[in-house]
Amino acid sequence: MNTTDNPSRKHWAVLTQRPTKKSTDLGKVIGEVFDEVEKNGDAALRVYTARFDNVVLNDLKVSQEEIDASAALVSEDLKNAIALAKHNIEVFHRSQITPKEVVETTAGVTCWQEMRAIEKVGLYIPGGTAPLFSTILMLGIPAVLAGSKEIVLCSPPDKDGKIHPAILYTAKLVGVTTLFKLGGVQAIAAMTYGTESVPSVYKLFGPGNQYVTAAKQYALTQGVSIDMPAGPSELMVVADEAANPSFVASDLLSQAEHGHDSQVICLANTKKQLEDIQAEVALQLKELPRKEMAANAIDNSQLICFEKIEDQLDFINAYAPEHLILNVENEAIYLDKIENAGSVFIGPYTPESAGDYASGTNHTLPTNAFARMYSGVNMDAFTKKITFQKISPKGIQVIGNAIELMADAEGLQAHKNAVSLRLKALKRD
Amino acid sequence: MNTTDNPSRKHWAVLTQRPTKKSTDLGKVIGEVFDEVEKNGDAALRVYTARFDNVVLNDLKVSQEEIDASAALVSEDLKNAIALAKHNIEVFHRSQITPKEVVETTAGVTCWQEMRAIEKVGLYIPGGTAPLFSTILMLGIPAVLAGSKEIVLCSPPDKDGKIHPAILYTAKLVGVTTLFKLGGVQAIAAMTYGTESVPSVYKLFGPGNQYVTAAKQYALTQGVSIDMPAGPSELMVVADEAANPSFVASDLLSQAEHGHDSQVICLANTKKQLEDIQAEVALQLKELPRKEMAANAIDNSQLICFEKIEDQLDFINAYAPEHLILNVENEAIYLDKIENAGSVFIGPYTPESAGDYASGTNHTLPTNAFARMYSGVNMDAFTKKITFQKISPKGIQVIGNAIELMADAEGLQAHKNAVSLRLKALKRD
Repeated sequence: MNTTDNPSRKHWAVLTQRPTKKSTDLGKVIGEVFDEVEKNGDAALRVYTARFDNVVLNDLKVSQEEIDASAALVSEDLKNAIALAKHNIEVFHRSQITPKEVVETTAGVTCWQEMRAIEKVGLYIPGGTAPLFSTILMLGIPAVLAGSKEIVLCSPPDKDGKIHPAILYTAKLVGVTTLFKLGGVQAIAAMTYGTESVPSVYKLFGPGNQYVTAAKQYALTQGVSIDMPAGPSELMVVADEAANPSFVASDLLSQAEHGHDSQVICLANTKKQLEDIQAEVALQLKELPRKEMAANAIDNSQLICFEKIEDQLDFINAYAPEHLILNVENEAIYLDKIENAGSVFIGPYTPESAGDYASGTNHTLPTNAFARMYSGVNMDAFTKKITFQKISPKGIQVIGNAIELMADAEGLQAHKNAVSLRLKALKRD
Repeated sequence: MNTTDNPSRKHWAVLTQRPTKKSTDLGKVIGEVFDEVEKNGDAALRVYTARFDNVVLNDLKVSQEEIDASAALVSEDLKNAIALAKHNIEVFHRSQITPKEVVETTAGVTCWQEMRAIEKVGLYIPGGTAPLFSTILMLGIPAVLAGSKEIVLCSPPDKDGKIHPAILYTAKLVGVTTLFKLGGVQAIAAMTYGTESVPSVYKLFGPGNQYVTAAKQYALTQGVSIDMPAGPSELMVVADEAANPSFVASDLLSQAEHGHDSQVICLANTKKQLEDIQAEVALQLKELPRKEMAANAIDNSQLICFEKIEDQLDFINAYAPEHLILNVENEAIYLDKIENAGSVFIGPYTPESAGDYASGTNHTLPTNAFARMYSGVNMDAFTKKITFQKISPKGIQVIGNAIELMADAEGLQAHKNAVSLRLKALKRD
C-alpha cells in the first residue's frame, strides 16, 4: 500500500488517476460477431456458443421446466436472504418513482412530466464460477417496478449447457420474462438486432468482461442505449480517529477481492490511523481464499493522510469514487459537500457489502470517475420522462406574441404562423 | 403527401421508418481534429477557425465588452419575449427538482437519493443566418438551476469574428459562465480535452450538423457524456373531426420548415379531414419564405387514416415521435396510453412552436425513435443522483446474515467478512 502524507494539490492528478487501460482494439472482432448475428440469427448464436462456451445447444431459450426446477436446488436460507434483499431493493426503488406534478407556468399554460417504462430491456449476467444472482435483483426489480413489458436475460451456459439454479431462481422471482443461455458478444448482438428466438431490446444493462463492455459500446452505435460505461470497481473509505481499523480493513479488502484492477483508497486525518489500518489489512488478508487477487489490488491501493477535512472533501470530489464509505463520527460535515460519488455508506455499521446485496440501494454504479456525470442504476434508468403541455385560448393569448417574436428572430416563419393563425381565430370569436 | 387508409400492421414497419442516413464515415476527419486539438490546444483551434469559419481570431474567448454591448443590439420587444420564455422554462424545470426522500427499507436501514449538479457542462450553439438563442434558454436555464459551476458555451464566429448579439445577450441573461467563438468539430474537441483558454467539461449538450453530431459521438469515446443521439426533427399530429384543418396544416408546416429531412406525419380518423388538411397545407405553403425546404419535407410526409383510436395509439407508440400534437376533443382517451414520445401538445391551442420557445417545456428532445428509451433534456440531464445509506447497529443485525449468505453464495469471502466482523463486535458489546 502506498502511503502519502498531506499531498499537495498538484500531486492530486496522479493520485486520482485510474490505471490506464490497454487500448486493445476489439472493434473488428465485435463488428464481425454483430454482422454474423444480424445476418444468420440463431444459427450464428449456436456457432459462437459452441466455440466460446464449448457446448452445442439446441434450445437457446431456458425452458419452463428448467426454471421451475431451480427452486429445489437453492437452499432455504439463501432463498430467505434473497427475499429480504428483494424487499429492501423494492422499497427503495419504489420510492424513486416521481409522481406527476402539474405546473401552471403562466395563466392558461400547464406543463408536466410523466415517467414511462422502457418497454423492452435486456439484462446481461456474466457466467463463471460464482452465480451473480444479486445483479439480477439490482436490474430486474427496477425493470419490473417501472413496468417494462419485455425483460430479457442472457447468461452464458456452463459446459453442460446449464445455467446456475440461483440465477434461474432469482430471475423467476423478480419477474424476468425470458431467459437465454447466451454469453459474451453474441448475447449483446442478439439483444441488439433480435433473432428468431431472442427479442431485440431498447436498452442493455449489466456487467461483463472487456468483450461484453466493448460489445455494449458497439450496440450504442446500432441504436440501442446502455446503462453506463464500465470500468474496474472502486472504493474510497474515509476513516476518522474513532473508526475501528479492523472494520476499515475489511471494507478495503472486500473491494480488493473483486480483481487485480480494483481501486482501493483510504483517507484518514492521522498517520497513526493509517498505520493501524495497514496492519489490520495484513492480518485479514492472510485468511482470504482470494488472497492473491486481493493482495494485488491492495499493492496498488493508496493510503492518504489529510489533516484538513476540506482537503478530504475536495479529494473525494476530484476522485469521484464509485463507492464511498464515511466511517466517521461527524458525518454531517461531509454529506452536503459530496458532489461526485456513486453510492455513499455512512457510519461504522454500513459496509459496502450491505449496498452490494441488501440495504436497498443499487449496486450498479458509475466507476472510473464517471460519477461526475452519471447516476448509478435507479428508476430513471428503466424509464424515460415525457413532457406534456396544454394551453388554453387565454394561455396562447398571453404567450403567443412572445413566440411570434422569437420565431421571427430565428427566421422560422411557419413556427410564427402556427401561433398567428390561432391568435387571429380567437380575435374573430 | 402520401395518404394511406387504415394501413395493416405489417405495413407499419415501413410507415414508421426514418429516412436512412448516408453512413458517410466521418471518423477519420473527426479523429484528426481531436488529436490536433489535444496536442496543440488553442493554436489548433485558431487554425481550424481560420480554415472553416474564414476568420483569424486572436481571442477565442468572447470579451466582457462584447457581451455587455449585446443588450443594446437586441430590441426591447425581443428582450421581453425572451424574459417571458425564461420565466416559464424556469418555473417548469424548477418543479422537476426532486426532494430528498429518506426511506427506511428495514428497521435501522435508511436509504435516500440526492440530486447533484454536473459541475462542468458544455453547450454548443450552431451558427448560420439565424441565431438559435432559444436553445441557450433550453440548455442554460436547467444548467443554472441544477447548480453547474462551469457553463461553457461555444458558437462559431461569423466572417467578422463576431457572434450574434441575441446569442450573447441570452447567454449572459441565463448565466453562462464563459463564451467562445468556436464552432464545429474543433469546439467539441476543445470542450472534451480542454485547451489553454477553453475549459474541459464533463457533459456536452446541443444541436449541430452531421460533423458536430459525429464529434459528440467521438467525445463519448473520450470519457465525456452527451445529452442524447441526434437525428432529424419530427412531428406527428393527431387530428379528430373537430380539429381546425388550418391549425393542423400550420403545425405540419412549422415542422417541415426545419429542413429537407424533417419528418411530418398526420393521423386522422376520417379521410375527409385528411383531404381538408392537405388542401390547407397547399394554401399556406405558398406564403412561406422557406417554402422550397418545407415543400420537400411535405412531399415525404405521411397522412394516415386510422378509424380506430387503438390503432392510432399503437401507431404513435410504434413510431415514438419527438413531438406529438393531440388536436382532439377527447384527449383523456389518449394520454395514459402514450408510451413513447418526446413532448406532447394537447388541444387546439397548443402548437409545437409553443414548446419550442415559451410554454416552459424543453425543446431538446429525442428524435429517430429514441423516445423509446431517452427523455428530452430536463433537470435529470444536468444532474446525477447519488445514493446514500446509513445502517444502525440494530439494522446490520437484521440484514447482516442475509448479506453473509449471499456473499458466500457468490464466492466473495471478504464481502461476507466485512459484515461478520461487525456482527461479532456487536455481540461482544
